[in-house]
Amino acid sequence: MLALEEKILQEGQVLDNGVLRVGSFLNQQIDVELTDKMAQEVCNIYKDEPINKILTVEASGIPFAYAVAQKLGVPMVFAKKRQAINLGDSFYKSPVYSYTYKKTYDIAVSKEYISEGDKILIVDDFLAYGKALMGLIDLVNQSDATLIGAAIAIERTSENGGNMIRSKGVRIESLAKIESIENGEIKFRH
Amino acid sequence: MLALEEKILQEGQVLDNGVLRVGSFLNQQIDVELTDKMAQEVCNIYKDEPINKILTVEASGIPFAYAVAQKLGVPMVFAKKRQAINLGDSFYKSPVYSYTYKKTYDIAVSKEYISEGDKILIVDDFLAYGKALMGLIDLVNQSDATLIGAAIAIERTSENGGNMIRSKGVRIESLAKIESIENGEIKFRH
Repeated sequence: MLALEEKILQEGQVLDNGVLRVGSFLNQQIDVELTDKMAQEVCNIYKDEPINKILTVEASGIPFAYAVAQKLGVPMVFAKKRQAINLGDSFYKSPVYSYTYKKTYDIAVSKEYISEGDKILIVDDFLAYGKALMGLIDLVNQSDATLIGAAIAIERTSENGGNMIRSKGVRIESLAKIESIENGEIKFRH
Repeated sequence: MLALEEKILQEGQVLDNGVLRVGSFLNQQIDVELTDKMAQEVCNIYKDEPINKILTVEASGIPFAYAVAQKLGVPMVFAKKRQAINLGDSFYKSPVYSYTYKKTYDIAVSKEYISEGDKILIVDDFLAYGKALMGLIDLVNQSDATLIGAAIAIERTSENGGNMIRSKGVRIESLAKIESIENGEIKFRH
């Protein structure tokens, strides 16, 4: 998606450790107009699918997921990362390893909010190693809901998480695919 | 706001410890249509104010804050609750005590995203003791931005956080004010 790629080139900051920082528009400060366009693109891509629920994980996936849910007119559910006292009695949970924080944490969602009969589109802001996405897919599978696919804002293809999950038959559509970042230069895959 | 009060009566669950659980529409599963109406109500209330940025804190404030930002056509920023490696070099932070989790944690926002000249509306889903709101106000004050006020989905007036903060001259508008919950019966203040 050209508008997103342009924004990444304009405002993305490549840190010394290779992390791409997109906090100015995607995951701390949110560019509402761009997010809205991204959501419209997701709706166009998945327009023939009978999606009735959006699933994401807190926190930075929420604005994009909300925008997609709004356009589709369906509820949005976010999995929590912490042990929460108000999750209800019963929930699905899945362990997720974070390369950012170098530890494993559980993500969890109440059984009330995803269940058999749901047709779920997972939406998230970032995909690299794919650990968060695998956790979300695990939650969907535990619930016996149907997974329609996933929509990702930025995928880093070099970490290969996306293709590893695609090879299991999961449809993943990423709005911007970053193939490499070398000497601060960002290359997209099309 | 009648539509929100009705939803609270229909779907809110009062737990044994007095916690009001609204996960089915406000803070885990999100009712997009209701959130949109709530955002419109906030815009009506603050229509004469020159707001140029929305500030909230992760995670459950984000959908409502995003919806308000969308209607106003301004960026939304969310403070993070954890130490994050991609917050950038310099950030404002403020300690917040959580009655839910019985511990103090820092909330933080990069200095890049709020600054002098900004006219900020704080948006959050819940207000009880007011600790998160005070932390957000502290971030705004540190940045020398102007605080226009706050918009809250559900305020529990019995904990008195709202009035304590109002007494310092901060404008707080809550869409539903819960005065008491006794024997599972929810009473609103108008």
